[in-house]
Amino acid sequence: MPDRFAKTPKPPYFAVIFSNQLRDEHEGYEAMGDAMYKLALEQPGCLGAESTRDGALFGITVSYWKDEQSILDWKRNAEHLAAQRLGIKDWYAHYELRVAKIERDYSGPEGRGKGL
Amino acid sequence: MPDRFAKTPKPPYFAVIFSNQLRDEHEGYEAMGDAMYKLALEQPGCLGAESTRDGALFGITVSYWKDEQSILDWKRNAEHLAAQRLGIKDWYAHYELRVAKIERDYSGPEGRGKGL
Repeated sequence: MPDRFAKTPKPPYFAVIFSNQLRDEHEGYEAMGDAMYKLALEQPGCLGAESTRDGALFGITVSYWKDEQSILDWKRNAEHLAAQRLGIKDWYAHYELRVAKIERDYSGPEGRGKGL
Repeated sequence: MPDRFAKTPKPPYFAVIFSNQLRDEHEGYEAMGDAMYKLALEQPGCLGAESTRDGALFGITVSYWKDEQSILDWKRNAEHLAAQRLGIKDWYAHYELRVAKIERDYSGPEGRGKGL
């Protein structure tokens, strides 16, 4: 499996879906975004993350978590709080953040020849 | 709010998180992908969708649904089934599909100056 996919366990587990539009001017974002991505993966309870962004600077990052407490702890992480403030002030034109409970999952196309 | 964001109602509602790696060769994908995106939005119970893909052809599409039955009905839609078969056979190197219940959501950065 390509390593851009999170290797998540059997459900249930939790996800934070972060959809965001970067401003055209977003100096400093890439370095901070990379640092936060790595820092998130080191947090207790983090199961992985998947992230992509197109040429129009619309991005979706989904991080996966063992439980809701892990998500709350990450939300309040001091370095992450500083990054959140910069994102709000300088980088994001708009964002939506949704917290979800993963109920079931599937992968493919290996072994899925008969249809989903 | 930029229109690449889904205008979802107050939770709870449901999401299908579809992370996927397109093959380098994926002739016919764009046209089918666009058609399926539009068709999904017309389905009963579909609340919207957000989608992005980077230059390395790694994409994330999140579609939002009123309830689980709407998701099952879409999964079994005849035109969608045909597209799923082509995706499995010709377009995707790998994908992960996760079905989730959205429990809470936030948006910004409007009015979020004091922190998330």
